[in-house]
Amino acid sequence: MNEQKPIAVLKFGGTSVKSIGRIQHVAEIVQERSKCGPLLVVVSAMGDTTDYLVKLAKQASAKPDAREVDQLLAVGEQISITLLTMTLHSLGIKAKSLTAYQVGIFTESVHNKARIVDIKTDSLLSNLKNSDVLVVAGFQGITEAGDLTTLGRGGSDTTAVALAAAVNASCCDIYTDVDGIYSADPNLIEGAKLLKIVSHEEVLEMSRLGAQVIHPRAVELARQYNVKLRVRNTFKPENEGTLITGGPNMEIYRAVSGVAMDKEQSSVAIINVPDKPGIAATIMQTLAAENIVIDMIMQAFHPTIGKNSITFTVHQDDLDRTISSLNKIKAELGASEVLSDSDIAKVSLIGAGLAAQPGVAAKVFSILGQNHINIKMIATSEMKLTCVISKDDAQKAAQLIHDAFELQKAVSQ
Amino acid sequence: MNEQKPIAVLKFGGTSVKSIGRIQHVAEIVQERSKCGPLLVVVSAMGDTTDYLVKLAKQASAKPDAREVDQLLAVGEQISITLLTMTLHSLGIKAKSLTAYQVGIFTESVHNKARIVDIKTDSLLSNLKNSDVLVVAGFQGITEAGDLTTLGRGGSDTTAVALAAAVNASCCDIYTDVDGIYSADPNLIEGAKLLKIVSHEEVLEMSRLGAQVIHPRAVELARQYNVKLRVRNTFKPENEGTLITGGPNMEIYRAVSGVAMDKEQSSVAIINVPDKPGIAATIMQTLAAENIVIDMIMQAFHPTIGKNSITFTVHQDDLDRTISSLNKIKAELGASEVLSDSDIAKVSLIGAGLAAQPGVAAKVFSILGQNHINIKMIATSEMKLTCVISKDDAQKAAQLIHDAFELQKAVSQ
Repeated sequence: MNEQKPIAVLKFGGTSVKSIGRIQHVAEIVQERSKCGPLLVVVSAMGDTTDYLVKLAKQASAKPDAREVDQLLAVGEQISITLLTMTLHSLGIKAKSLTAYQVGIFTESVHNKARIVDIKTDSLLSNLKNSDVLVVAGFQGITEAGDLTTLGRGGSDTTAVALAAAVNASCCDIYTDVDGIYSADPNLIEGAKLLKIVSHEEVLEMSRLGAQVIHPRAVELARQYNVKLRVRNTFKPENEGTLITGGPNMEIYRAVSGVAMDKEQSSVAIINVPDKPGIAATIMQTLAAENIVIDMIMQAFHPTIGKNSITFTVHQDDLDRTISSLNKIKAELGASEVLSDSDIAKVSLIGAGLAAQPGVAAKVFSILGQNHINIKMIATSEMKLTCVISKDDAQKAAQLIHDAFELQKAVSQ
Repeated sequence: MNEQKPIAVLKFGGTSVKSIGRIQHVAEIVQERSKCGPLLVVVSAMGDTTDYLVKLAKQASAKPDAREVDQLLAVGEQISITLLTMTLHSLGIKAKSLTAYQVGIFTESVHNKARIVDIKTDSLLSNLKNSDVLVVAGFQGITEAGDLTTLGRGGSDTTAVALAAAVNASCCDIYTDVDGIYSADPNLIEGAKLLKIVSHEEVLEMSRLGAQVIHPRAVELARQYNVKLRVRNTFKPENEGTLITGGPNMEIYRAVSGVAMDKEQSSVAIINVPDKPGIAATIMQTLAAENIVIDMIMQAFHPTIGKNSITFTVHQDDLDRTISSLNKIKAELGASEVLSDSDIAKVSLIGAGLAAQPGVAAKVFSILGQNHINIKMIATSEMKLTCVISKDDAQKAAQLIHDAFELQKAVSQ
């Protein structure tokens, strides 16, 4: 077979395989790409399959067991891998479908959002002796005990990058339904511009904030293992999309590269916590034990009463669990109240050179102020400036910032 | 847990779990039964899931690969086991779903109709330490190489009996949508009567001929491992149904116990084969290699031309493959022609005491003759008399025979 040639990894998301017609189209891309060497093709579940399965689970039980949900959801990818493989066969391509168990994609023993621990390459490499294309189920994994797990949001992207890292693939191309990564969401922001090349770090800051082209876990993994990641459009396979590559290997320097928006967050505040060590740690440990990811943590000291308030944001889906977890430890913490605000959106400016330009933050605050947009929280990092504002203001704020920094003219390198 | 108490195996077919509402009903039966001890519950795919998946496969490829079809079909049971398990959880029952891989249901490496080779009991027994009910996927298996297989027709019944044999279960109850085993199909034959007890052998003769309550493979396995098998109605769980038990343990003696009908057969004739040894063997080996099951083989010698004709029946789904296989070896055999007839039905009379009563056959032939029903083929065995007639005559013939032997008065034990 093609063992001498390097292996490439391609990944197709749910919208790319949502019908037999689309699977046919994906098969043609795979056929074209397989002329250059062996392929591992990762697919997500077809279109709305996962939503449908989740609906079934909720009908069966108000609070379905996490292990059983994973065992149920894993069928989505098992369906799509077999249908794509059959379609490849009908094009005369030697292909074989493999589940997470058949590959040996081992995860930690956590359900619904497990992290990949190890990928065995024996099965992949031996199957490539008889097949030109292996179609691998994304999103799913297996524990040492043989239980099925799922990887949570962005799971299939993560599977693709992890496979690329495991077999030392020449590239990992994420085919999706957009052209690549833009300076802002082109559906929402006028003048949003496609970036031809971008650093892992910049994408991380963008995607964590809701520019939902590729999941940050996958980008992080790509950065860690130096995987050459590309985002491209399934429906315009001739386009090169956006290359996401390591910072040191390139010469990206843009003060501001994009604007991102995330309307799926809620903020939580724990009020009047005694000002003593260990309080924040207790809170974080409690939420970590529940697998709740929090962001934008800030602590404010009220000198008049000698107490602190701790505020942070969580994904809105985790809000109820967060509040009930905190209410359980409220007395232990000595806090007076747990408050939450669901009417928030994060609008962020991302740029590799942001930290070096103090004028940027001032400009953002002033634009928002002039337009009567109230800022609820602010957070800054080396590459990112985030303002939490009301959901209704988010789109307008993102457009104002995009315009003010003339991102529609962004150099696409 | 309940380790001291014997394990019971229950099996629910596709119609019993075809909706969340029905799964709820099944869960209530399981809840009731679990009061008496640990349970292994085998389920089929929900209602039309398998048909839907087969349709998808055919859309993906005109001739989908057998391995991929199995990998696809196996999801049907993976869905139903998780939904039943979640429903059991919501009733407060400690339950866990297990796929064939998780149990260790090993089959031969044949796709679409694999036979079970071995069932590991370690996983079952260790999981029963923490669960009162294990919900096991029927119909599916796994090869040593880790490929998924399916067991073909009657697969879930076979899984249930094989599990019962493996764990030495106290009983194996097959819940279906009929009350049990009748003297004839009650939907077709007036006066058909429910049998309270019947021997493995009688059921084998009946079910092989289309009394589709339970698959012969499952009954055969039950006979081999002396599994106490019962067929009962999911929708009337208070009824005892039909007990299928070993002949030696009981005192069944009925000249005639039932009439069965099978309209899904075709006959194939190989004409003018030279009268020399080895011909029949070549034919059978060729078809066996294709996994085609044949029945009612008969050979007729034509003394005038010194040649044989070989005739047999196959399931109509296998007819095309049978004819094309035979055409390939036609020249080698020296046969002049391969003919087929799809307008056939088998009507059979079954009874443990049949062979001892030569008058029975005469009575059957005379009834059919009086009613102008032409007999195309005849076969007899210890417990069965089968006439092949035209499909259109089948129902009438079965009713005539049922009436003639007064089976509506059959002693139910």
